[in-house]
Amino acid sequence: MLTLFPEMFPGPLGFSLAGRALEEERWALETVDIRGFARDKHRSVDDTPAGGGAGMVMRADVLAAAIDAVHGPSDERPLIYLSPRGKPLDQARVRSLAEGSGAVLLCGRFEGIDQRVIEARGLEEVSLGDFVLSGGEPAALALLDAVIRLLPGVMGKEASGEEESFETGLLEYPHYTRPPVFEGREIPEILTSGHHGRIAEWRRQEAEKLTRERRPDLWEKYLKASRHRD
Amino acid sequence: MLTLFPEMFPGPLGFSLAGRALEEERWALETVDIRGFARDKHRSVDDTPAGGGAGMVMRADVLAAAIDAVHGPSDERPLIYLSPRGKPLDQARVRSLAEGSGAVLLCGRFEGIDQRVIEARGLEEVSLGDFVLSGGEPAALALLDAVIRLLPGVMGKEASGEEESFETGLLEYPHYTRPPVFEGREIPEILTSGHHGRIAEWRRQEAEKLTRERRPDLWEKYLKASRHRD
Repeated sequence: MLTLFPEMFPGPLGFSLAGRALEEERWALETVDIRGFARDKHRSVDDTPAGGGAGMVMRADVLAAAIDAVHGPSDERPLIYLSPRGKPLDQARVRSLAEGSGAVLLCGRFEGIDQRVIEARGLEEVSLGDFVLSGGEPAALALLDAVIRLLPGVMGKEASGEEESFETGLLEYPHYTRPPVFEGREIPEILTSGHHGRIAEWRRQEAEKLTRERRPDLWEKYLKASRHRD
Repeated sequence: MLTLFPEMFPGPLGFSLAGRALEEERWALETVDIRGFARDKHRSVDDTPAGGGAGMVMRADVLAAAIDAVHGPSDERPLIYLSPRGKPLDQARVRSLAEGSGAVLLCGRFEGIDQRVIEARGLEEVSLGDFVLSGGEPAALALLDAVIRLLPGVMGKEASGEEESFETGLLEYPHYTRPPVFEGREIPEILTSGHHGRIAEWRRQEAEKLTRERRPDLWEKYLKASRHRD
């Protein structure tokens, strides 16, 4: 993790599922302070944008030095720069990262980073979504959380995540648990019927309905993939 | 913040921009431990899913009690449940939250929460993106970070965020700063020309090109909005 704020890590990933997995050494994280690669006596990592405008831009030379310190030319780990200009993160990329041999994540701050280091180091730009954060760190924490839970031994065998949202190309069906009646609302009868086949069919229908209503974009993709399978 | 892991907060938001703003009392956060609303001696908050399947589901009665403790019927703050089944978060929603009077965020864990509490309390389901997290907490931290930076006085006047990705409907143009040459790569000449009008035009063109190439979905929306303005 290349960052100006190493103290933000592991942060929330030090608790719960990810925290236990960290203790069990199922994953590990090394933070590298970008400021350690500044070249002047003020330890500056940023400068004013060429062409004018608000804010500051992180320097290409400082970032390149930080990257090169942890990622040599034969290193096959992806070099990811968290940026709202990147490709939106999806569950397929999360799964491929979980199956890979790690990653180097670069967290920017301020207005952004010099375009030349993105090109010179071939950074993969990944976006968490269509919103702007104060820096890459909250995005990196979310990305890590998504990846960590898929690592072997973290969730346990049962909860393999295969029926979750996006793994099937659909949003997930609604869940219910005890009590049988909550404020007059009952659990759908089919779920207490014991008919496993019908329950599975109901859940598929609910997942399809929800996806069609809420996410026509996902539904369109799902239909195309279904036609492909036929 | 309704969560099973209050210790995750403020986490990364205790540092940098959000951390300073927290010290200056430009924002505040109250965490409420959902477990405090369990009703049995084991303090259980979840149970097995009706209809079978992996994992555990958070109980409607426990969650409703936690919600009702902080959000009365006349409370106009949105009640947000972070969930991959929700509407994907975008900068417009972030901005409306920053302009509002706060929010109550509910973080789920395990397989999800009982559908009946979503319906009975009219929860607004918001998704960070098309991936699955171990719980709502990392999503809530990212959402808060996006909102906090837009609060009055947090970023300072200059960096109002108006030229950023999504605020204009486009991805942001590339940034450059010193040094003038980095590994043989120069800053585009136009940016050092001093012609403010031409620089603005170049940046607009670059932003349009980037959006067209990387995000045809955003580009399509941008074109529609432009036609609307004409």
